[in-house]
Amino acid sequence: MVRPSPVLKITLRILCGEEIAMGPGKADLLDAIVREGSISAAGRALGMSYRRTWLLVDVMNRCWDGPLVETSMGGKVGGGARVTALGQAVLAQYRALQDAAAGVKEGVAWAELHARLRGQPLASQQEGREAG
Amino acid sequence: MVRPSPVLKITLRILCGEEIAMGPGKADLLDAIVREGSISAAGRALGMSYRRTWLLVDVMNRCWDGPLVETSMGGKVGGGARVTALGQAVLAQYRALQDAAAGVKEGVAWAELHARLRGQPLASQQEGREAG
Repeated sequence: MVRPSPVLKITLRILCGEEIAMGPGKADLLDAIVREGSISAAGRALGMSYRRTWLLVDVMNRCWDGPLVETSMGGKVGGGARVTALGQAVLAQYRALQDAAAGVKEGVAWAELHARLRGQPLASQQEGREAG
Repeated sequence: MVRPSPVLKITLRILCGEEIAMGPGKADLLDAIVREGSISAAGRALGMSYRRTWLLVDVMNRCWDGPLVETSMGGKVGGGARVTALGQAVLAQYRALQDAAAGVKEGVAWAELHARLRGQPLASQQEGREAG
């Protein structure tokens, strides 16, 4: 029987006013734009709607010093997109921040928590279950 | 004019199988149970429904080595609740983990990101706005 390990998930979100300037989804989108060379192809690769993909790009481009993604209308059908030098720098620093935060897994607090966690939760015996 | 600082939000979630064994909401609930001495009063203090409050306690009590919260039926109307020694230890270690992760704010990656962020996002000029 496989006993899955407990997992510590760490999520970093950088807020600019009410907007999320960078977070896990936007970082993955930047990676996908680098790979795919277009915003719509990147969105498709991540299973996001066209509208949502553009909204994420729009937010990123309004929160930083300059745009993180630039589009070009010429050439290819649908236009291409590229991650700017600023976008690449922000992405790299965000990944560095994620790595630094993940360093807490080496510490004593996580070791002690990990030791007290079950591999799987017990089944629920809550009365609410029967009650609906 | 106030220029709010960009903010780095770090969220830690400890998973046990499909359940969240500990996270920001459950840690706040443990704090509230310590303060209020009852699960329902703690839920009210946090603006959560009775059902949701009990579900969170149920999940916590099934994911760890032992229960984090114990209830007593005698005495007070509605019964009281207390955070067990294990619950207090888990809460303290989780807070220590949060503090450790927050240490990334002292590092160079956050300093560089912070320097490139606007205090407020630019207004959206997306065509989607007019389109609906």
